[in-house]
Amino acid sequence: MALLGKLVVCGVGLIGGSVALALKRAGAVERVVGVGRSPAALEHALALGVVDEIAQDWAGALQNADMVLLAAPVGQTDAIMEAMAPHLGPNTLITDAGSTKRDVIEAVYRRLDAHLARVVPAHPIAGAEKSGVDAAFPDLYVGRRVVLTPLSENDPAAVERVRAMWQACGATVVDMAPQEHDRVFAAVSHLPHLLAFGLVHDLAGRANAELLFSHAASGFRDFTRIAGSHPEMWRDICMANRQALLAELDQYLAELAYLRALLLGGEADRLEKLFEEARCARNAWAERNAPPPITAE
Amino acid sequence: MALLGKLVVCGVGLIGGSVALALKRAGAVERVVGVGRSPAALEHALALGVVDEIAQDWAGALQNADMVLLAAPVGQTDAIMEAMAPHLGPNTLITDAGSTKRDVIEAVYRRLDAHLARVVPAHPIAGAEKSGVDAAFPDLYVGRRVVLTPLSENDPAAVERVRAMWQACGATVVDMAPQEHDRVFAAVSHLPHLLAFGLVHDLAGRANAELLFSHAASGFRDFTRIAGSHPEMWRDICMANRQALLAELDQYLAELAYLRALLLGGEADRLEKLFEEARCARNAWAERNAPPPITAE
Repeated sequence: MALLGKLVVCGVGLIGGSVALALKRAGAVERVVGVGRSPAALEHALALGVVDEIAQDWAGALQNADMVLLAAPVGQTDAIMEAMAPHLGPNTLITDAGSTKRDVIEAVYRRLDAHLARVVPAHPIAGAEKSGVDAAFPDLYVGRRVVLTPLSENDPAAVERVRAMWQACGATVVDMAPQEHDRVFAAVSHLPHLLAFGLVHDLAGRANAELLFSHAASGFRDFTRIAGSHPEMWRDICMANRQALLAELDQYLAELAYLRALLLGGEADRLEKLFEEARCARNAWAERNAPPPITAE
Repeated sequence: MALLGKLVVCGVGLIGGSVALALKRAGAVERVVGVGRSPAALEHALALGVVDEIAQDWAGALQNADMVLLAAPVGQTDAIMEAMAPHLGPNTLITDAGSTKRDVIEAVYRRLDAHLARVVPAHPIAGAEKSGVDAAFPDLYVGRRVVLTPLSENDPAAVERVRAMWQACGATVVDMAPQEHDRVFAAVSHLPHLLAFGLVHDLAGRANAELLFSHAASGFRDFTRIAGSHPEMWRDICMANRQALLAELDQYLAELAYLRALLLGGEADRLEKLFEEARCARNAWAERNAPPPITAE
């Protein structure tokens, strides 16, 4: 018997669609039902075989549902939870795939407070350069990490069942406290995106922008790659994780103030020491963390 | 007849060694003489066939020299020029390969003021992840750009001969004013390196550094790649280009202040607009600028 009888995927894009395909391939789900805002997109997902059915409304979708995966843009979380709540049964587990957790959890407390035992927030760390159901593929989560941020109210069996679902997709699952999650990802993901967007925006607005870009080379290419990311998705992440991101930005501004002082004071030795410490740390990390073998096309 | 009879390369590493190999392959030089601080390194360059001779001193090196390429670390520029000056003849051209120009030019005015007509500063934009003569190869400059920053005192024939040398290496050569060069490269190269070093240094110093790095993924990888660069080389570049770098850093700090205000004020639309402008600019640039086909191993 499969891990899940009926899985409902809300938001059948790259993330949600890849979970569906992974679980189907693993024989871990019997039936996948898609819900979302766009009937045409859902029809397309159905035609691709990513979902087995489309639901017309939450009442139909949630009937006898074992698990719901919320994989829509994080800005829609509150509205989705509000719409689901009246139709949610006492045996349905809920998980999500949002890049931020504290805001999702606030929505959970606000909209799903009768179901806290069964809502287990998650964040799959999976590249999302492409988007949409056409980009979905079953290997997206293989060798990747998923972070769970269980609520104190969670039923331990619910947590383990959600963990098993993500593991069935091929992922390694770790647990973190929500606040810690948001600070960690603010530091290593959200802030770098903000910084890269900021540099490109700064230079693009210059009178000599064309000259500047004409002399940009490989260092600029690498540093700004993430400035090619989706503006809407990153707007949502930055807004959702505003508090943690501001804290991280302020830490970084203190680092830049120190660097500024070193430059101003001509402190070559201190500057070299800083660069050396950074290089050591970066190289050690890179050695321990070869990129995952499977990447989205 | 070859473009150059006798070329002297001071600092036979990746940069200088690759020029030697490129010109030899192109039949553009008859004889390459190496000078530098380390006899063992020069012997090795000789054994590899990168240079044809090693000079024991500047007097011997500069006798009948058609051109000198200064390709040592930029921090040594002043000392090298001081040592060369007494032995420099009236027909020897000088060029360099430094990532910064204003400081090199200040050294030229200070040490080589009797030779200003023949000193044509240059900056080859060529990746330098590896270093040392073992990494030198003749294709390094093929399809790459070299920026010349001629002095107003330069003899036009000298400028053209230096241009021809770099073109013989396979490079496209463009001209810029030194101050403009330094601001442009501060913006698109030096500042990104500073920012990447700064972020890694900031995070590496945290109590939870291990946790942070354990959750860093592909975005972090790209953003911080240049934080794996050589600390000494970047110390020298940042110190040499301090003025321009501080100006660029201050512009960027203003951009970060704006981003901070948007986050604080929850200005989602303005944030999205900024991200969209950045993404457009970055993608347009990336499309126009595919990475060069030949890269250093």
